[in-house]
Formats: sequence, structure tokens, C-alpha cells
Amino acid sequence: MGGDYGPSVTIPASLDCLKDNPELKVILVGDQARLQPLLANALTQFQGRLSIQHASECVGMHESPAKALKNKKDSSMRVAINLVRDGVADACVSAGNTGALMATAKFVLKMIPGLDRPAIVSTMPSIYGHTYILDLGANVDCSAGHLFQFAIMGNELVKAVENIERPKVALLNIGEENVKGNEQVKAAAKLLENSSLNYIGFVEGDSLNAGPTKVDLIVADGFVGNIALKSIEGAAKMIGQFLKASFGQNILTKLAALIAYPVLKSFKHSIDPRLYNGASFLGLRGLVIKSHGGADTLAFKMAIKLAEIEAGKDVIRKIGEQVEQALVTGTRL
Amino acid sequence: MGGDYGPSVTIPASLDCLKDNPELKVILVGDQARLQPLLANALTQFQGRLSIQHASECVGMHESPAKALKNKKDSSMRVAINLVRDGVADACVSAGNTGALMATAKFVLKMIPGLDRPAIVSTMPSIYGHTYILDLGANVDCSAGHLFQFAIMGNELVKAVENIERPKVALLNIGEENVKGNEQVKAAAKLLENSSLNYIGFVEGDSLNAGPTKVDLIVADGFVGNIALKSIEGAAKMIGQFLKASFGQNILTKLAALIAYPVLKSFKHSIDPRLYNGASFLGLRGLVIKSHGGADTLAFKMAIKLAEIEAGKDVIRKIGEQVEQALVTGTRL
Repeated sequence: MGGDYGPSVTIPASLDCLKDNPELKVILVGDQARLQPLLANALTQFQGRLSIQHASECVGMHESPAKALKNKKDSSMRVAINLVRDGVADACVSAGNTGALMATAKFVLKMIPGLDRPAIVSTMPSIYGHTYILDLGANVDCSAGHLFQFAIMGNELVKAVENIERPKVALLNIGEENVKGNEQVKAAAKLLENSSLNYIGFVEGDSLNAGPTKVDLIVADGFVGNIALKSIEGAAKMIGQFLKASFGQNILTKLAALIAYPVLKSFKHSIDPRLYNGASFLGLRGLVIKSHGGADTLAFKMAIKLAEIEAGKDVIRKIGEQVEQALVTGTRL
Repeated sequence: MGGDYGPSVTIPASLDCLKDNPELKVILVGDQARLQPLLANALTQFQGRLSIQHASECVGMHESPAKALKNKKDSSMRVAINLVRDGVADACVSAGNTGALMATAKFVLKMIPGLDRPAIVSTMPSIYGHTYILDLGANVDCSAGHLFQFAIMGNELVKAVENIERPKVALLNIGEENVKGNEQVKAAAKLLENSSLNYIGFVEGDSLNAGPTKVDLIVADGFVGNIALKSIEGAAKMIGQFLKASFGQNILTKLAALIAYPVLKSFKHSIDPRLYNGASFLGLRGLVIKSHGGADTLAFKMAIKLAEIEAGKDVIRKIGEQVEQALVTGTRL
């Protein structure tokens, strides 16, 4: 029900994914009376793989997370997360209110023992392929220990999803030298140096997209990670607008645009943010994927596909095992 | 002497600026034996406006700021800053070691009384024109009071340089709602709300280039500001590379590139980072402009021109007056 476009995006995206993957099962959670008419004959077409789970309420995009958690016990996101808790669903995908989704997920699913806070992780395109970054906004004022936990969780995710044995893990900082950075980052570096992770050191902001070396996973506190992500989004938007304006100047430049159209289209595809839609909440005892609220059908499809991959790779169990092992061997988390 | 290219960039840039502005005087500070031969007949051509001030040492790009300050009392940057302190020069422009330049400037020029720390401010292109941001890396772990000082200093700079009476000042945050952010940002918001500045609230990372509304000055701690700047640089670099790759695919796309060449050139100009080269150190009792170390002649020219503008607008005196006034009226700095 969530996101800027609700079922008009989530339903076609779900049906597309059902077509793409014959193993997939989708439970649409929300107002049955609203969903049913939009499905036409899809329930018959995908019999046994598509169903509706009624939920009488819906959390607004700007509603307070605490209030949503307290007052809307039959909201679509709450019911969807309950399905994950009860083992009925392998993952919950939502384009709804991020804060409410996080609060509800944390309350219903609980944290993996040994971890303090969930983190939001996502990928970004880079000249080397793509880069994972966490945390993207769930946590501000993180301690070194929290940054270390993020690294452990993110490392397991990258290993599982990307089939990389030892992902290159880095800390986001304002310089590559040891003396640079704030206290948390410097202390987190010490923890990572003494860990079993393939920690490669500090990287600067440009390493998200085009740094001097390939990095698989970048760890930052939620404040810094969020600012970096949004700054990159703004830069891409501005550059796109300037490119459009340059080609729109006059009849000659418009002609050039016409000729360059296939090139510009392939270029646009290479940085299409919709292809990177879908952020995972890590640290919980269940899989929850957050789609951008403004996602269109293609973007929401990517979030569902991310859930398919992470569920298929058993990411949550692997993170849990890794954390347990660290606790057994006495590694500080 | 500083930067990646030394006098091979700083000298031609200086000569270009002398040509452009008949009021300008340039003192080249560095190794006389190295500089003199590179000047050919320029000393005659610009007689009375161009001179060399010998300095026997030079701070390396990776030298420790503390060591440079202690051991290299006749370094080119130290001598140049001494000239500012002594009123011989109105500003010092350097492409050298940032940390050493900052440490030396702080030691030699001293802070404006009432201010704790210098801040680095620069501009970025945006869909609305351009945006000033500070701090860009001089200060990590800032208190709310420091953020407030940055706002006061930046506000005076923008007023003077841009001729804007009441610049729109915002705090960089991870959301626009009051509840968002870390403790320092929330406390700084309170200070700014009660100040005489035109404080417009929190903005997110995309407001540096393409946010929902025009902002003149964005305030952040040095860690966050630096990460945002570098992230944007990385995004621009990646997008540029993808665009180039799209046009370089095959003979047809290369033909399209040829036809679109004037458009691509005008586009490239609109986001040319060289045009935004030059960051000002604010809070000191003298004007110091830091150029990017990798600046070419055009970029270094922009840094010199920035010094011309800020010296012409008497920015340092205006910041000093504003701070003094705030102290007299008892505003907390």
C-alpha cells in the first residue's frame, strides 16, 4: 500500500516478477477491497503463487514511527512483517514510511542477539561495477563498536549476494592517512584492523563512485552515509539537467540530440538510479527490503528482485552465524 | 611552489591574472633561482606589479603540518602568509599542503577574537546558480557553537562576495524534520533560529547541487562537508566516464559524438570543476585561499581571482566586525 504510488506500482511490479521467476511466490498485503479489482485475472494466472493478505490499516508516509507502531497494529507493513516473523514469508518489501518500517521491523522481528542497531545498506554504481554502503540513515551518533557491527553485517551480505569470498571493506573518512578523521572512525579502524575482515583502510567520499581503487563495502555512520548518498543523487540530477539543457538550446543542438539519442539512452541506462533501488535492513532476525518511496514499476521490481536474491542466499542466517561465531570467539562487537 | 605542478602552473596563472586586471599586483613567493628564469620578460612587462619574494624552503605535499610549522620557517607558504600578516599582501593563494597551510595560517595570522577554529569554505555549481558550503575538512567533531560560528562567517562572505543582503543559510542534515539529525545539528538549529541570520532550516545532501529549493550557504561540520564534496566529485567523475564510454562504443556512436561535440563542450563547461577552484580559510585575521593541489593554469587563475574578489570586498574586516558586534550584543558564539 505504501510509497508515493501505492498498488498502482507495487502490483504491476509484483506481477512482472512472478512472470520472471517461476519459483517466486508473492503475498500482497493491504486493503483487500482495493487490491482485488486491480488484479484482474492475475490471481487465476498465478494460482498458488499470488495471494492477498488483508490488512485494514495503512501507515502514512509522514506519520510518526512511534505512533504507527502503537496505534496501527493492523497496518499493511505490520501485517507483512508479522508474516516474516511467522515464517510465512521469506522477506517483506515495502515502499512505505522508512522510519515506521524500521521501528516496526525492529519491534516485531527483534535484533540478532549481539547486535545493537539495525543498519540500512544499499548499492551504488561505480566505475568498477558497484559499491555497497551502510549505514544509510538508520543511525546517527554511532560508536566505533557500531561501525564495526555494520562492517560485520555488510561483509556477510556482500559475500552472500556477490559471491565474493573476502570483500574489500573500507571506512569512509576525510583522508586516507591514519591521523585523519573523527574519534569514532579512528577507533573503528583499530577494531577492523584486528578483525578477520579484509579491511583495506580509509577511503574518501569519491570511492563510492570513482575512487582510486575498487572497494566492495564502505562503512559509515548513518548521518554521513545518508549525506553522501543524497549528495550523489543531487549531483546526478544536476548533471542530468545540465546535459538536457545543453542539448535543448536550439534547433542545431536538438538535431544533435536526435542523432545522439541511442548513445544518450545507453548512457542514461548506465546511471539509472531505478536499477539500484532497494535497501536492506540488516541486523534483524528477518529480511526487510525498503524501496524508495517514489519508485516506479521498474524500480520496485528491482527491490523485489533484491529480496529474492537475499532470501535465496540466506543472508539473515549467515549474518546471525557470523555474529554468534564472533561472540563465541570473544571478538568485541 | 606548491601543488602538483608548482611554478609551471602558478606562474602562467599569475601572468594571465595580471593581464586581466590592471589593478592587480602579484608577489611570487619561492625559490628565486627557480622562479626568475621562468618569468622571461614578465618582470619588465608588469613592472611595479610583479615581483619575487625569495623563500629558501618549500613544504612537501605530504609533510606533517606540525613539522612544517616547526622546522620550515622560511618555507614559501610561511613567507607568503607573513606578507599578509605584515600588510604587504592582501591575500595569500597557495596550491600547497592543505594541513600545513592551515596550521601556518592559524599560527601566523591568529584567529579573529571570539572565533575558535578556522573553517574552509568553497562554492559548488547548482541548478540555481551556485551554493557555498563550509566547513570542508578543517574541523571534525564540531560542537553546535562551532557550526554557529561557521554560519556567521560564511554569511558575511556570501553577503560581501555575492551582494546578497540576507543569504539563505541552512544546516546540512539527514532530513528536513526537526526530529532528524545528530545532537550537534539539532542544537545548532536552535542557535540559528534565535540569530539574526536568514536561517531556512535543515537541508539534505542533494541541496548542494539540486535540492528542492535554492540555498546560498550550507553549514556542516568538516567531516560531513568533506564527505559530501568528495562524493559529488566522485559522482561527477563516474558520470563523465560513463558518458565518454557511451560515445566511444563504436564508429556510429563516435560519429554522434562528433556531431554533438559543441553541445558536449558547452555541457562540460557548465560543470567544469576548475571554475570552482579556490577555497577560503575563514576566521583568520587575514585572507588565505587554498587552491586544489592538482589545479591547472585555468583552475589556479580562478583561485587568484577569488582572492582578488574577497580582498576587494574586504571580507576579513567584515567578518571581524560581525563577530565583534555579536560579542557586544552578547550573542553566543
